[in-house]
Amino acid sequence: MAVLGVDIGGTKMALASFTNEGEIIKSSVVSLVKGDGRETGGMIKSIINSYLIASAKEGNRIESVGICVPGIYRQKKGTVWAPNIPGWDDYPLLQEVKTITGTIPVNIDSDRACYILGECWKGNARGCRDAIFMSIGTGIGAGIMIDGRVVRGSNDIAGATGWMALDRPYRKEYLTCGCYEYNASGEGIAKVTREYLNSDSDYTGILRKKPVEKITSRDVFDAYDANDKIAVKVIEGSIELWGMAVANFVSLFNPEKIILGGGVFGPAVKLIPLIIKEAERWAQPISITQVSIEPSGLGTDAGVYGAAYLALYTKPQ
Amino acid sequence: MAVLGVDIGGTKMALASFTNEGEIIKSSVVSLVKGDGRETGGMIKSIINSYLIASAKEGNRIESVGICVPGIYRQKKGTVWAPNIPGWDDYPLLQEVKTITGTIPVNIDSDRACYILGECWKGNARGCRDAIFMSIGTGIGAGIMIDGRVVRGSNDIAGATGWMALDRPYRKEYLTCGCYEYNASGEGIAKVTREYLNSDSDYTGILRKKPVEKITSRDVFDAYDANDKIAVKVIEGSIELWGMAVANFVSLFNPEKIILGGGVFGPAVKLIPLIIKEAERWAQPISITQVSIEPSGLGTDAGVYGAAYLALYTKPQ
Repeated sequence: MAVLGVDIGGTKMALASFTNEGEIIKSSVVSLVKGDGRETGGMIKSIINSYLIASAKEGNRIESVGICVPGIYRQKKGTVWAPNIPGWDDYPLLQEVKTITGTIPVNIDSDRACYILGECWKGNARGCRDAIFMSIGTGIGAGIMIDGRVVRGSNDIAGATGWMALDRPYRKEYLTCGCYEYNASGEGIAKVTREYLNSDSDYTGILRKKPVEKITSRDVFDAYDANDKIAVKVIEGSIELWGMAVANFVSLFNPEKIILGGGVFGPAVKLIPLIIKEAERWAQPISITQVSIEPSGLGTDAGVYGAAYLALYTKPQ
Repeated sequence: MAVLGVDIGGTKMALASFTNEGEIIKSSVVSLVKGDGRETGGMIKSIINSYLIASAKEGNRIESVGICVPGIYRQKKGTVWAPNIPGWDDYPLLQEVKTITGTIPVNIDSDRACYILGECWKGNARGCRDAIFMSIGTGIGAGIMIDGRVVRGSNDIAGATGWMALDRPYRKEYLTCGCYEYNASGEGIAKVTREYLNSDSDYTGILRKKPVEKITSRDVFDAYDANDKIAVKVIEGSIELWGMAVANFVSLFNPEKIILGGGVFGPAVKLIPLIIKEAERWAQPISITQVSIEPSGLGTDAGVYGAAYLALYTKPQ
């Protein structure tokens, strides 16, 4: 008697079986070979199938499956849009997985939905009914939990936080990713740094050790720790925007918790006190005293926990 | 067989009785004499009491009462914080009204909640399950409907939209009302105009006809219509911020409708096409195609409709 949580990423997938009480029985991570949309789907089905058979043999028959996908899950159609999986513009994942799960119920949702479900279930937002997971990695998104339910919006694309408008005037660079993501995602930190490096020919600091086009946010965080002047300018700008975004969530949602996760938190976890200080300047002054702003308690496992939560507690689709 | 909707304002209160099918039977507006918190409460109770008696005599016995309050309704305690009613920091309105309604159920909620309930029931968001009412008057707030339920937050103060951070850097003037409200509320439009007038001694336009400290947003809208250069600058700045705020609602909530209401819409209704154009630059590009942005369909009646909705469809408190 167990459930299976599956977290599909662009290049790998994590699986973990859980007891009905939510304890992990076993977990594994499997690489996904590059392929077209149907090939990737085939791999995923075969990996899940093997896991179901192995679990049954070990005496932990899987009774429900939850799946976390890296993009948008269109609940009514059962299809997935995943920008990092070639060919998954509208992939019929629910129908495909059902061909191997048979009568076992399957529930799917977006990574942002799973992250907040996982954190509210077993992470740093445990027991909260109003909480937000702001995921800052290559891109920016948010899982928003209101009164115990994840916000989907009219067409499943709520939480597109990278598009938040936080700074006038509009710049044409925002066209493909939005103001907030352009300036303060992992990729944004690298991009803004490259802009400064290209416009400051006098600068000879440690960020010159690499070709400009190879600079990553990790390099910028390292240079920030070494008090490099460009890195300090970039990260201080990001802290300001992260604080403004946190403040906007506080003022609009009056949540109990805001969880900061994704690849950037990571190295930015130590900056959370500065982000809170910035948010305090902007946010509704009573709401900001009612919220706790914390790093993810589950880290890279948030997706698989959220998927297991779907398997255990969501009505089958 | 009827219900009563009550919309309490700072200086007056509106009452309307509705059939169980939601048709207005009769309505009236009563002025509230200035008094302390308990006196205002006493007036409100007495007005409701008279209405109940009169309705019963006319054959429309009131079976349920809904009340819209101008501030925050603390649902668990049944108390009201209303900045424009002296002494209503934590006024026990539910308990007080129950002394005169007896066994008739009473439901109370904030104006922002009632506005979106009213619009989703009988206004321009009719039938929507995901919709937002952005109210721009002296201040700025929003009623947010997600999947058919109004967002309250952990302590009833969700929707504090006036505190939205939309423009760097932080200014100390935002301390008491927030960045968005400071720049783009009715009072904000007047304030920003006064700042320009005080710093531009060469300006001799029509806004000089009044003492600077008496300028209202209405004056600025009139001057904008006459193509006055300061008014154009101020209103164009407001359009930019209204568009950014609309875009943020679109990206975060993926709603079906955004309703623009409050005293400023009013004169700003004719600017909605420009606001939509601005929002299109900032918002998540798919979400913006799925939303309709419209003026209020109920205008100043939105509160009394929302209150009637509370009376008809909400579980008694």
